[in-house]
Amino acid sequence: MGELRVFIAGIDGYLGHALAQYLMSRGHYVSGCDCHHRREWVKSEGGDTAIPIGTPGERHHYFKERFGKLWVGSYNINIAHEDNYGKLAGKFADLKPHAVVHLAEMPSAPFSMISREHAAMTHMNNVVGSLNVIYAIRGSCPDAHLVKLGTMGEYGTPPGTIIPEGVFPEGSHWDIEMPIVQGGQETGTQYSKSYVLDGLMFPRQAGSWYHQTKVHDTNNVNFACRMWGLRSTDIMQGVVYGTRIKEMDENPMSATRFDFDECFGTAINRFCSQATIGMPLTVYGNGTQKRGFLPLCDSMQCLAIAIEQPPAEGEYRVWNQFEEVYSIRALAQAVASSASVPVEIENVPNPRKEAEGHMYEAEHSTLLKMGYVPTNDLSGQIVGILEDLEPHADRIRRYADTIMPQITWDGGEYDEKVDPVAGNGAEVEDKTEFHI
Amino acid sequence: MGELRVFIAGIDGYLGHALAQYLMSRGHYVSGCDCHHRREWVKSEGGDTAIPIGTPGERHHYFKERFGKLWVGSYNINIAHEDNYGKLAGKFADLKPHAVVHLAEMPSAPFSMISREHAAMTHMNNVVGSLNVIYAIRGSCPDAHLVKLGTMGEYGTPPGTIIPEGVFPEGSHWDIEMPIVQGGQETGTQYSKSYVLDGLMFPRQAGSWYHQTKVHDTNNVNFACRMWGLRSTDIMQGVVYGTRIKEMDENPMSATRFDFDECFGTAINRFCSQATIGMPLTVYGNGTQKRGFLPLCDSMQCLAIAIEQPPAEGEYRVWNQFEEVYSIRALAQAVASSASVPVEIENVPNPRKEAEGHMYEAEHSTLLKMGYVPTNDLSGQIVGILEDLEPHADRIRRYADTIMPQITWDGGEYDEKVDPVAGNGAEVEDKTEFHI
Repeated sequence: MGELRVFIAGIDGYLGHALAQYLMSRGHYVSGCDCHHRREWVKSEGGDTAIPIGTPGERHHYFKERFGKLWVGSYNINIAHEDNYGKLAGKFADLKPHAVVHLAEMPSAPFSMISREHAAMTHMNNVVGSLNVIYAIRGSCPDAHLVKLGTMGEYGTPPGTIIPEGVFPEGSHWDIEMPIVQGGQETGTQYSKSYVLDGLMFPRQAGSWYHQTKVHDTNNVNFACRMWGLRSTDIMQGVVYGTRIKEMDENPMSATRFDFDECFGTAINRFCSQATIGMPLTVYGNGTQKRGFLPLCDSMQCLAIAIEQPPAEGEYRVWNQFEEVYSIRALAQAVASSASVPVEIENVPNPRKEAEGHMYEAEHSTLLKMGYVPTNDLSGQIVGILEDLEPHADRIRRYADTIMPQITWDGGEYDEKVDPVAGNGAEVEDKTEFHI
Repeated sequence: MGELRVFIAGIDGYLGHALAQYLMSRGHYVSGCDCHHRREWVKSEGGDTAIPIGTPGERHHYFKERFGKLWVGSYNINIAHEDNYGKLAGKFADLKPHAVVHLAEMPSAPFSMISREHAAMTHMNNVVGSLNVIYAIRGSCPDAHLVKLGTMGEYGTPPGTIIPEGVFPEGSHWDIEMPIVQGGQETGTQYSKSYVLDGLMFPRQAGSWYHQTKVHDTNNVNFACRMWGLRSTDIMQGVVYGTRIKEMDENPMSATRFDFDECFGTAINRFCSQATIGMPLTVYGNGTQKRGFLPLCDSMQCLAIAIEQPPAEGEYRVWNQFEEVYSIRALAQAVASSASVPVEIENVPNPRKEAEGHMYEAEHSTLLKMGYVPTNDLSGQIVGILEDLEPHADRIRRYADTIMPQITWDGGEYDEKVDPVAGNGAEVEDKTEFHI
């Protein structure tokens, strides 16, 4: 394994900084770009990373020293900015990457819902940014493999169906159920006709403007594969959690950012930050929302599988990438039981509009067939996160007022006094796992 | 009927100028906005409207004189431009429209495929523009009904299924066909399990960046209905053709634009323009591509039905709006047989990447149930177009070199020497009509 040239757009981010190290540890040449929007966005909301990180320059020197010639460099390019397109296409022409990993999207649902300006910026940054990446590959390195991150959130939580991997699998049909009427009585139902769905995109029903932009990007990448023979792996990723991967070392420059604010922190990471400072773990609504999760190390593993086993020319392949499905409440309980001090779990009104207590069954067997070995150690991972956060408890305390939700999906004021569990869906089992 | 306040975004366009007259003839108050991009875009490609049209100012005075107080006015607002958002939201707040008809999208597939800049501009104009319309309604007139134009092209031409109206209809299920194995032999197939698809978006498989942006808008409007209770009618429109509606009068200011260039002209309109100047009718590929078409007068009729019978709060309804399905070849034959001089039909290489000789069955019964009475007179319509174009043959001749395709889907040079019908799909019947 090794010796592929990989370009990471968004190399300064949570996943990007870890992925660079993971790939160089496997012998790949790594370059990338970033315009450091993530640093700005988190600060614009009054937050900061719990674990201190190096400046882009410090990170560059650290990589150069640690990885030598495998570290090619990171360039300050805003992929969505009209004036930067020439730089992006030029880098692709110079570097001739085998794979372009696109991690340069604005990744926060609440941030996209703050205002019209945030919604429009998210569309510009993500959709036009991805379009530019597609065109730069086409113009400068048409054989390159685009590894694009989608999200499991694109599908939403359809109430009566499993979620296949991106497209309807081979052998899929749809039918309309029609009543059978005999002697004026409805005696049953029959299927009208069987239509073929093979390979068509599975319906998306995303829950925020951010998630909508990921759906648009999915559609656009699929289009470029169909029209131009782009090869792409489109990864519908679950929620990633964790502070480290074993390919990081003890140098503080190796650490990746770790956000815990309302916008850029995700469930497990936010709960661990709250536990670190003895703050109650705030669960939105009744906490029966279910999602797929995976630890940072497994996210890296899956991305490397995609990079090292590229698709054919024109092939558009979609994988659902997560390890296990948990309810938010179950995750809070797991964090609380690993915390070194007693912490409470508090249900707070859900600022989002989302189903609670719903069905959630998603296929995710392709990566397993391609060699993915899940870590399957939620509590061990949580213990590791809590250990890594402990020395930074003061930083978490300093920015703790960014944790509680303020941004509501209906645009109104967040009202802490609403009963957070009244009127919500029925209780359901906390964990579902499904394979076709 | 009548006395609704209707705001038309894109009121200066092919549909917009006709719709204003149609609605005022029915007693509605009409206002709108336009930034006259369509005029610029057609000119940027060296073309012009076959039928001369008034300036925005001339049209304003004509409407004021003809319709009196029903004509409220048109405002120069670029709905996609950041700096114009306040003007748009302000107009909605002042005018409190019952319905906002969104016709302000860049509507050409080839134009969107010219370059990266055109693709990015199309995304900005259409997706961010629609987002701004959604936000302006939410902020200024949340009860207003958004009538948004999608296109039948969003669905593409799925090879094994009918196309329902936007979403999977009630009673839809999907199944995976699994082999039945008995004694080591595959003896048949069975359906694995029945999953519910009711109400989920039907898969889209659009064929150009323009069509992609329409899919994005469809998803975004659906999102706003789900999240914010926006009421919307999303119209998947077939290809509109024709020069006039009976609500126009003989004043030249009443005429709507009529484009026939490669980008902004559509099949029937382009064929009629070619026939007017005795130029061969150029059919892309073997001409067995099938699409839904409808005359301009029926497009107006359908839009008025949507406006006058609005959906409930939060309701997202989708209609497929076309009259009949024709192959491109059949349309060329229909135009040739109506022309006053003998015209040839010439197959030219298809600049697009699209299926030929494919299945095409699309449900479109909702509008019929709501009172739509199709004109069903293709040849009468064609005769009318040819009559209207006759006095402007010189203008068509002047811009005739914009008719032949130059813009290719694969980004290469358009090669006129390729055999246009070799290797294409099997011949199929020319007309299919399907109702569930």
